[in-house]
Amino acid sequence: MATAEWIAVDWGTSNLRAWVFGPGNALIAQKSSDKGMGTLAPTGFEPALLELVAPYLGGGPVPVPVICCGMVGARQGWQEAVYVTVPCAPPGVAQATKVIANDPRIAPLILPGMKQTAPTDVMRGEETQIAGFIAENPGFDGIVCLPGTHTKWAQISAGEVKSFATFMTGELFALLSGQSVLRHSVQSDDWDAAAFADAVSDTLDQPQTLSARLFGLRAETLVNDMSAAMARSRLSGILIGLELAGARPYWLGQRIALLGDPKLCSLYQTALDQQGAKAELVAGDAMTLAGLNAAYVGWKETTR
Amino acid sequence: MATAEWIAVDWGTSNLRAWVFGPGNALIAQKSSDKGMGTLAPTGFEPALLELVAPYLGGGPVPVPVICCGMVGARQGWQEAVYVTVPCAPPGVAQATKVIANDPRIAPLILPGMKQTAPTDVMRGEETQIAGFIAENPGFDGIVCLPGTHTKWAQISAGEVKSFATFMTGELFALLSGQSVLRHSVQSDDWDAAAFADAVSDTLDQPQTLSARLFGLRAETLVNDMSAAMARSRLSGILIGLELAGARPYWLGQRIALLGDPKLCSLYQTALDQQGAKAELVAGDAMTLAGLNAAYVGWKETTR
Repeated sequence: MATAEWIAVDWGTSNLRAWVFGPGNALIAQKSSDKGMGTLAPTGFEPALLELVAPYLGGGPVPVPVICCGMVGARQGWQEAVYVTVPCAPPGVAQATKVIANDPRIAPLILPGMKQTAPTDVMRGEETQIAGFIAENPGFDGIVCLPGTHTKWAQISAGEVKSFATFMTGELFALLSGQSVLRHSVQSDDWDAAAFADAVSDTLDQPQTLSARLFGLRAETLVNDMSAAMARSRLSGILIGLELAGARPYWLGQRIALLGDPKLCSLYQTALDQQGAKAELVAGDAMTLAGLNAAYVGWKETTR
Repeated sequence: MATAEWIAVDWGTSNLRAWVFGPGNALIAQKSSDKGMGTLAPTGFEPALLELVAPYLGGGPVPVPVICCGMVGARQGWQEAVYVTVPCAPPGVAQATKVIANDPRIAPLILPGMKQTAPTDVMRGEETQIAGFIAENPGFDGIVCLPGTHTKWAQISAGEVKSFATFMTGELFALLSGQSVLRHSVQSDDWDAAAFADAVSDTLDQPQTLSARLFGLRAETLVNDMSAAMARSRLSGILIGLELAGARPYWLGQRIALLGDPKLCSLYQTALDQQGAKAELVAGDAMTLAGLNAAYVGWKETTR
C-alpha cells in the first residue's frame, strides 16, 4: 500500500473528512466518518483520525504532516487554534497550531479561523475555502459568498479578507422547515421557481415583514390550500431575500463568486441575478482541498 | 356537589382548561389537563373533557352547554369550526359549531376562529380573548396586541375586528434559544434591560440585518465573552424589534392594549414605550374567560 506524504483534513462539527496524498501529490485515498468535533472529547480526536488514515502511515523517521481546518480548532476541539483578525490573508501554516500527537507517525497542524472586531464576527473552515479560492484566482478583487448553515460574505482584495459578515439563513431554514409550525406546510421535493423569485423580491423590499410572511405561509396552507412546493420555495425565497437585503453593501456593484453546494449556490445566483448582480459558481469542496493544499505548499517551503 | 349550569373550555394544542359555573354564575371548579388538541384523535375529545367535568354534570333533562374555543375547532380537532372572515365581530354562539356528544348530559359548542383574505391570516383562540376584551371595553377603538408564540395585532373598531396580522416572534425565540447554535450563548435567567432596549431600536432601524445580528450573538460570546443574560436579552430585543418594525402600521399613533402573559406583555410595553407608543396591559387569561362568558350570555338569549 502507498505511503502518505501529507494528509488534508476537513474536520467540522458533524463530519471528519481526510484526503491522503502520496508521492507526486497523487491522491491515494479519500476517507470520511461521522466523528465530527461535536461528538468528540479532546482525547478522542487522535484515535478518530488514525481510524481513517493509519493504513497509509509509513514507518519512516519523519512524521507525516496532517493539515486540518474547521471546528477541530475550536476551544472545545482537539486543540484551540486562535482566530487571526481581519483584515489579513487567510491563515496558512505560519499561523497554524501544532498538535503533539501520541503517535509519532503524524504531525498535525490546525489552521485557525478568522475573526472580525467590528461588527464582531467569526468563521472557522470557510477561511480555508477562501484561501483555496485566492490560490486559484490570485488577482481576484471582489466578493466571495459561501452559502450554508451560516452563510458568509467576504470582501477579498490583494489576497486578503478585508471584512466579512455571517447570516444564519441556512440554520433558520432548517429550524423553520423542520421544527416550527411551518413543517406541516413545506414538506415537498418539488420547486416553484416563480414563488421563490416573488418571495425574494418582496422580502428584499420589505425585510421588516419577515415574521409575518413566515406565518403567512401557514395561513395560506390552511385557507387557500397552498401547495407544499410553493410554501417551501417561498420560505427559501423569504430567507434568502432577507439575507440579500442585509448583505446589500457586500454584493451591490461587486464581482461575486459563490462557493459551496452547487444547488444552494444556484439559488443565490438566481436571487442575485433578479437584482441585476451576476455571480459565478465555484465548487466548495474543491476549494477546501485547494486551501489545505496551499497550506501544505507553505509548509514545504518553511521546512525545506 | 354543586351542579354545572355551563362550562367554559379553552382547548389549545397542548392544554385543556375547563371552568365549571353553577347557579348565579358562581365558579364551582377549575380543571386542566395536558390533553391538548395535538395529542387527541377525534374520538378522544369527549372522554378527555368528561374526565375533567363529569363530576359536575347533573342528571337533569337539559344538557349543560359547554362553550369551547381554540384549536379544538381546527380541521384536525374535535369537529371543524369554520373561520369567520374579518371585518366582523368576534364570533359568538350564532357562529359556533354544535357537537353531538355521546353523553346526553353535555351540549358542546365550538367557537370558530377568524380569518383574513388579504393578506391571508388566521387566528384560533385569540378571537375569544378579543371578544372578552370588547365585552369589557365596549367603546374601544384601537389596537389589541396578543403577544405569544404567534403574536397577533388586531385593529378593533365599533365592536369589530377590522384587520389583523400574525408574527411568529415567540416561536422564533423558542427555536433560536432552544435549538440553534445560539442555545450555547443565551441560557440565563437574568435580564439586561439596556441590551434589550438597544437591540429593539437597532433592529427597528435596520430590520434587514436580522440574520446577521443573530449570528453576531454567537460571535460576541466567542470573541468577547458576552454574558448569557446580555445575549438572551438582545435576542429577545432583536425579535421584538423586528416585529415592531413590521407591525408599525398597527401601532403608530394608535391606542394599544396588550393582552396576555404579564411578563411578556411588559417587554412589548417597554419596547413600544421606547418608540413613544403607550400601551396598557390586560391579563390574557381573564379575557379568555370573559369571551367565553360573553358567548354564554348570547347562548342564554337565543335559548330563552
